[in-house]
Amino acid sequence: MYRLHIANKNYSSWSLRPWVLMRELDIPFEERLTPFETGSNGSPFRDFSPTGLVPCLVDGNSVIWESLGIVEYLAERYDGVWPEDAAARAWARCASAEMHAGFAELRQRCTMNCGIRAQLTEVPPSLQRDLTRLDELWSEGITRFGGPYLAGPEFTAVDAFYAPVAFRIQSYGLELDELAMAYTERLLQLSSMRQWYRDALREPWREPGHEAEVSEFATLLEDYRTRD
Amino acid sequence: MYRLHIANKNYSSWSLRPWVLMRELDIPFEERLTPFETGSNGSPFRDFSPTGLVPCLVDGNSVIWESLGIVEYLAERYDGVWPEDAAARAWARCASAEMHAGFAELRQRCTMNCGIRAQLTEVPPSLQRDLTRLDELWSEGITRFGGPYLAGPEFTAVDAFYAPVAFRIQSYGLELDELAMAYTERLLQLSSMRQWYRDALREPWREPGHEAEVSEFATLLEDYRTRD
Repeated sequence: MYRLHIANKNYSSWSLRPWVLMRELDIPFEERLTPFETGSNGSPFRDFSPTGLVPCLVDGNSVIWESLGIVEYLAERYDGVWPEDAAARAWARCASAEMHAGFAELRQRCTMNCGIRAQLTEVPPSLQRDLTRLDELWSEGITRFGGPYLAGPEFTAVDAFYAPVAFRIQSYGLELDELAMAYTERLLQLSSMRQWYRDALREPWREPGHEAEVSEFATLLEDYRTRD
Repeated sequence: MYRLHIANKNYSSWSLRPWVLMRELDIPFEERLTPFETGSNGSPFRDFSPTGLVPCLVDGNSVIWESLGIVEYLAERYDGVWPEDAAARAWARCASAEMHAGFAELRQRCTMNCGIRAQLTEVPPSLQRDLTRLDELWSEGITRFGGPYLAGPEFTAVDAFYAPVAFRIQSYGLELDELAMAYTERLLQLSSMRQWYRDALREPWREPGHEAEVSEFATLLEDYRTRD
C-alpha cells in the first residue's frame, strides 16, 4: 500500500494536496504524519524525503517526493486524477503548475492555519493581484468546463491543488467573487476536507514559526483548536 | 504549427526549457520572442499569456501557459518527452517539479545571463545547500538510470528543466563535482544550447533589472555580448 508522508494538518498546505486527492478518488494509502519540529526547519523529514520536504509518497522502493510528481505518478495508475477531456486536462495541469510556483503573496500573507480566524492588517496591491488572478482563473475553469469543479463535473487534481486556498479564505475572511465563494464552500464541504479540518483542530502541536507568520500580517480573532 | 512565446534568450531561463526540449525532440514550432520591456515588470506578455509570464505555448485555440503544463501537453502528443522507463519517468517528473518551485537561492543569486562571466561576492550556506542538492540529485539520476542524461540515455524534459543551470554554472564559474561538471558540459555542447547561446549573445537589449541582479551578488569579469 502507498505510504503518504505528511506534516501537521493544521499548517501543511502541501500535505493536503495529495491527501485530499487520494481520499476523493478512493485511492488507498497509509498516512504517516510527522509534525514540524519546533525550530528545526523541517529537518526530521529528511529521513524519508530527499528534499527534506513533505508530502512524499512511498510505493515499495519508489520515493515520489514532489506534489506534481505524485499527481502524475497516480495519474498513470488511476482514472480520474486529471479530467478526461483533453482541453480540460491541459488547462488543469497549467493551473496546478501555476499554483505550484505562484501565488507567492497569498501563500506568505495568508499562511494556512486551518483552526484560526484572523483579520489581515492590510491587503496590499501584491496580494490583491493574487486574489484577482484567483477569481479570473477559477471563473475561467468553471465557466469553460461547466463546473461545479474547476475543470469539469468531477473533483480532479487541480481542485486538490487549490484546496488549501479554501482554508485560507475561511481563516482570513478573504473576499472573492460570487462564483469563487461558492466553489470555496463546495471544497470546504467535501467529506475529505471536513475530515482534514477536524483532524487539524485536534492536533496538540503549536509550531512557533507558523504561528508567528499569522501575527506578522494579521490580528487573531478566534482559535478553534482544542486546548488541553 | 505550435507558436512558442519566449522572452530574451540572454535572460529568460523559463523560456529556454520548452524551447530546448522541442528543438532536441525535433518538434516543429514557430518562435515568437517578445523582449522584456525596460521597467515594465513583464506586462507586454499579458497580450498572449494569462499570467503575464513566459513561456507560453499556443496550439490553435489552446493556450498552454506553464512550463510543466507545456511539457505534459507535448508528452501526450510526442514520444520521448519523458523517459520510457516508468521509474525513470517518475524520478524525472519529481526532479522537474523540484526545479519548478525550488533552488530559490541559485535562481536569485546566479540569475541567468548567458553572455557574461562573473565572480560571486560570496557563496553563503543557503546557496551552497542548493549546489549540494544539485550534485546529489544529478548524481542520483545519472548513476541510477545509467546516463549520460539525467534520466537515462536520451535527453528528456528533466534535462530541459536543468538546462538553464548549465548556463548559470558557466556564467558564475560555479563548482560542482566531477559528474555534474561533465553533465554540464554535455548540456552546453548540445546543438540547441549552442544555438540559444549564439542568439543570446547577439541580442541588442540590456534590461536594467536583470543586469542589476548580477551586480547585486557578483563582480562582472567578462561580457561576451555584441556591442554595437
